[in-house]
Amino acid sequence: MQLTLEQETEIKRLTAVSNSTKRSTVTALEEIIYKLFPVLDHGFIRVIDYMGDDSAIVQAARVSYGRGTKKVHQDKGLINYLMRNRHTTPFEMCEIKFHVKMPIFVARQWIRHRTATVNECSARYSILDREFYIPAQENLAAQSSDNSQGRGVSLSENEANDVLNILRTDAEHCYNNYEKMHNEDEYGNRIDENRTGVARELARMNLTLNTYTQWYWKIDLHNLMHFLSLRLHPHAQLEIRLYAEQILEMMKRWTPMTYEAFMQYRMGGAHLSSAGLEAVKRMLNGEKVSHSDVEMTKREWNELMKVLDKPEE
Amino acid sequence: MQLTLEQETEIKRLTAVSNSTKRSTVTALEEIIYKLFPVLDHGFIRVIDYMGDDSAIVQAARVSYGRGTKKVHQDKGLINYLMRNRHTTPFEMCEIKFHVKMPIFVARQWIRHRTATVNECSARYSILDREFYIPAQENLAAQSSDNSQGRGVSLSENEANDVLNILRTDAEHCYNNYEKMHNEDEYGNRIDENRTGVARELARMNLTLNTYTQWYWKIDLHNLMHFLSLRLHPHAQLEIRLYAEQILEMMKRWTPMTYEAFMQYRMGGAHLSSAGLEAVKRMLNGEKVSHSDVEMTKREWNELMKVLDKPEE
Amino acid sequence: MQLTLEQETEIKRLTAVSNSTKRSTVTALEEIIYKLFPVLDHGFIRVIDYMGDDSAIVQAARVSYGRGTKKVHQDKGLINYLMRNRHTTPFEMCEIKFHVKMPIFVARQWIRHRTATVNECSARYSILDREFYIPAQENLAAQSSDNSQGRGVSLSENEANDVLNILRTDAEHCYNNYEKMHNEDEYGNRIDENRTGVARELARMNLTLNTYTQWYWKIDLHNLMHFLSLRLHPHAQLEIRLYAEQILEMMKRWTPMTYEAFMQYRMGGAHLSSAGLEAVKRMLNGEKVSHSDVEMTKREWNELMKVLDKPEE
Amino acid sequence: MQLTLEQETEIKRLTAVSNSTKRSTVTALEEIIYKLFPVLDHGFIRVIDYMGDDSAIVQAARVSYGRGTKKVHQDKGLINYLMRNRHTTPFEMCEIKFHVKMPIFVARQWIRHRTATVNECSARYSILDREFYIPAQENLAAQSSDNSQGRGVSLSENEANDVLNILRTDAEHCYNNYEKMHNEDEYGNRIDENRTGVARELARMNLTLNTYTQWYWKIDLHNLMHFLSLRLHPHAQLEIRLYAEQILEMMKRWTPMTYEAFMQYRMGGAHLSSAGLEAVKRMLNGEKVSHSDVEMTKREWNELMKVLDKPEE
Repeated sequence: MQLTLEQETEIKRLTAVSNSTKRSTVTALEEIIYKLFPVLDHGFIRVIDYMGDDSAIVQAARVSYGRGTKKVHQDKGLINYLMRNRHTTPFEMCEIKFHVKMPIFVARQWIRHRTATVNECSARYSILDREFYIPAQENLAAQSSDNSQGRGVSLSENEANDVLNILRTDAEHCYNNYEKMHNEDEYGNRIDENRTGVARELARMNLTLNTYTQWYWKIDLHNLMHFLSLRLHPHAQLEIRLYAEQILEMMKRWTPMTYEAFMQYRMGGAHLSSAGLEAVKRMLNGEKVSHSDVEMTKREWNELMKVLDKPEE
Repeated sequence: MQLTLEQETEIKRLTAVSNSTKRSTVTALEEIIYKLFPVLDHGFIRVIDYMGDDSAIVQAARVSYGRGTKKVHQDKGLINYLMRNRHTTPFEMCEIKFHVKMPIFVARQWIRHRTATVNECSARYSILDREFYIPAQENLAAQSSDNSQGRGVSLSENEANDVLNILRTDAEHCYNNYEKMHNEDEYGNRIDENRTGVARELARMNLTLNTYTQWYWKIDLHNLMHFLSLRLHPHAQLEIRLYAEQILEMMKRWTPMTYEAFMQYRMGGAHLSSAGLEAVKRMLNGEKVSHSDVEMTKREWNELMKVLDKPEE
Repeated sequence: MQLTLEQETEIKRLTAVSNSTKRSTVTALEEIIYKLFPVLDHGFIRVIDYMGDDSAIVQAARVSYGRGTKKVHQDKGLINYLMRNRHTTPFEMCEIKFHVKMPIFVARQWIRHRTATVNECSARYSILDREFYIPAQENLAAQSSDNSQGRGVSLSENEANDVLNILRTDAEHCYNNYEKMHNEDEYGNRIDENRTGVARELARMNLTLNTYTQWYWKIDLHNLMHFLSLRLHPHAQLEIRLYAEQILEMMKRWTPMTYEAFMQYRMGGAHLSSAGLEAVKRMLNGEKVSHSDVEMTKREWNELMKVLDKPEE
Repeated sequence: MQLTLEQETEIKRLTAVSNSTKRSTVTALEEIIYKLFPVLDHGFIRVIDYMGDDSAIVQAARVSYGRGTKKVHQDKGLINYLMRNRHTTPFEMCEIKFHVKMPIFVARQWIRHRTATVNECSARYSILDREFYIPAQENLAAQSSDNSQGRGVSLSENEANDVLNILRTDAEHCYNNYEKMHNEDEYGNRIDENRTGVARELARMNLTLNTYTQWYWKIDLHNLMHFLSLRLHPHAQLEIRLYAEQILEMMKRWTPMTYEAFMQYRMGGAHLSSAGLEAVKRMLNGEKVSHSDVEMTKREWNELMKVLDKPEE
């Protein structure tokens, strides 16, 4: 991803600012605010603004418990407690705003998270940039055979090259015709004086789904963790997962205690079903258990065994 | 839009059903439930389920007012009152579910309405149909010169034909390559035995934004009216407006009193700003007023004059 | 709880109705629709309307997976899969509406669930009924000593009687003065002709928090299960838990497959933290593990042991 | 309202802080951050944190319009445009957090605004303060005769005194018994060693609805304006209106351009129905119009005449 001179100047200007505030600030996040973190071939994500930190979560939780809690909870212990017991509203007290550039098909998955605010670059007003996502060759793979979504085995080099060629050529070709149809250069000047050009809102329908778009995205910490837990999951599409991984790093800077609790109680653990818990209890008592003993399907049983690092049936 | 035999059979089966229920039913809506109403060249919308009717709104409002309201409000008067005074929660008591097929660029606008439930056909699991939106020639137009979005003057026949040619050719071409890349026919059978085929989630990024997608969409009546008020607006893109118009007809069948109130108090009226109201008052007193007398911009003044059927300045 | 004659007549009328509909219906729920189910001493809950059933969830999920899923999933298996993998939107496709009567302090907990629609009886318009929640003696208990909320040991009979006396007397006394202040009988007629009476919105502030209120409450199935998982939890206050238990029975009638999946994967199971999972794995390998081996606090460790039916440390 | 020494010290400490940040700051709001603004007899509201300012709104709007907008909009003009045309998402980009103390009956109205985050002091954990709202005498009034809610004529001094006496006495009396039942002083120490005391979650139900509670409340600017437009309305209950007025002052400091636009286009204007607009147009053409000419009810007509400063029919 290449920055325009204008963007570089703007980022320099913003990161040089030093305002005085009575609000709480997070040094580790201030260090990277406004800076671009590349994702995919032309995408990026950057933090634009934030509100609150770990102590804001603690403060909100304490107003709930008030004088009723006699013991002095340590902040870290309290945050762990909140995470463990699904007391979610204190985490909503923190808010963060990102500027993201990503392919349209990624944006389509992302926007399914409804409890966030989005302002997207509108292709009715603006001319989209000539930028398309072309996967790295090692990320090309066949349809997965076991989960009916996602990717399985890698493609042969030949087939991979064919795919990359198609993606590159078709995106370029469609963009050329997009430009031709709306008949404007990137500054909005008419290209061919003999043609009127069609409205941008019509021309854009010729673009392919790997064309890049961008938006501002604001979300609270509770809903951000929900986004992360779904989009960091191995079943999430690789391309959006890479954005989620970058966001996770940013969250680690922003609210380090919440990050630890999130990894400990949400990402790193496992949920056992009623039957799964029954199986574990019986195995702990030295019993040999099979899927039929606890009325689990073989598929679920094998999922459980995988979680427990045990051989599948 | 052409139905598959399978779909036709399913619709016939569903519309022949007659279940018995103690819930309130709406005859005019039952008449069209499940039936497809075409929109654009391959799109459609149909009602799949609903809950509540005008009387459910009245019932919910009455639990709020309870015995405190001595006068027997007529239902219609009460619904008008609620609409006029922005008492919105009773309208949330009604719910409707649609099945919609529309081009991806329309879906992208539609999904901005967050207070609804969506289940979209996933191109990670499924192979999308070979169907693209190609505008009717009379709907091709140049970028609007006055509102920096939307459409202005029509294109010449020659230019229009060029645009339609591009849209048709590029969509077909990209779809062919999509099919070639994932290497499956519409039944999921491998086309070329010598190639693995790339995962569907990757191949789909080669599709153009006028490719059709479909989803189930469930929303309550209050939020539906909000959707309609924005998407029936002349500034909304024509393509989504055509869906909104079809939905408005369906709403008229479903909750006719609420429909009347919506047209009277939301769609048909006008909002005057503080300055606009001041201007009207002075004009009603026989004064000759210009935009500067009430500190309005010329643009706003002319918008007001248009609303009042008066000549612009 | 006693019904007015008017209410009884209305319920008789509604349950005698038999409308014809093309929508799917749920016989087991139709059997109890409109009927009052008592909760606490004067409260109740009843189903007023619903939309969708188990098959609506399956239908919405299938539009997502479409032709991409070759295997014929059985409905039950698909619902289990959705629940297990947190695919929540298909469950949002079902909607249910309740009429609930509950004490104000219960209503205050209930309304924290934001993704629902509420129309509450307004004490600005209406005169509230002379009905207060007085707990059964066996439900009076001291503050819990271990979880800083909730109840612990039972009260002595003497102390319990004192408490019940206070609750009864103060609620009655405050209601008498409420009535005196607004100066109207239950039909809205002035009681004392020599006094004006104060506005209801002011008089009501003299009522105690165990006064009953009522509302219509509409929610989708996904959010209903979230409500249930929190309000059926042993840490939830007993009074709201009793409502949740009644709702769970109603849900069992409405969407029996989803009910089974909910009990299997949400209510009956357990969530293990990263450290907890580590501990289980090591125990399954025959290791003797203590809380410090996996860096858990003693409190968390004991919670885990309880889940696994093992002795606490 | 009286502050504890502890609170005063904390506020002094916080307002003395000066952190350095790269985020945008709002000087006029920093001047009052953390400071208590009294509302009612014991209530208050104060700003605890904020994110964004007028320029954040402009920035978010510009990412939507991008290079498509050739003209350099002035910030103020752009904000006015957004407000006028209901482009609401850019206003969601600003966030503010308040600490509020208010009577429970006010909290019950407030919480109906669902798109906000709340952490309320829990009476299951904490002992509520001995503080009750007692209206000023001039705010006591009879039930309004025309809008079936709200207040009408003032009470006689005698009746007013009786009401105030009841409110004071009953609140104190109920609080005394609350304290007696849970059997703890304000530091959580047992009062009477011979009694166990009942759980706080039970004792609190004896409190009257004018008892004060408090919470942290976080909301974005768009939803805050929605809250204000409803709660500043003359039909809103006086007590919550006083909080809204204080918040409006705070908003004026925070986002002055948005404040101006809000007053101009939302608060100060008027919405004309379809029939109302028709009437105005005909009156502007010199016609004499009555309510029946445009099929308005007499009530609606008179509301319109009031808006236009014309005599009622």
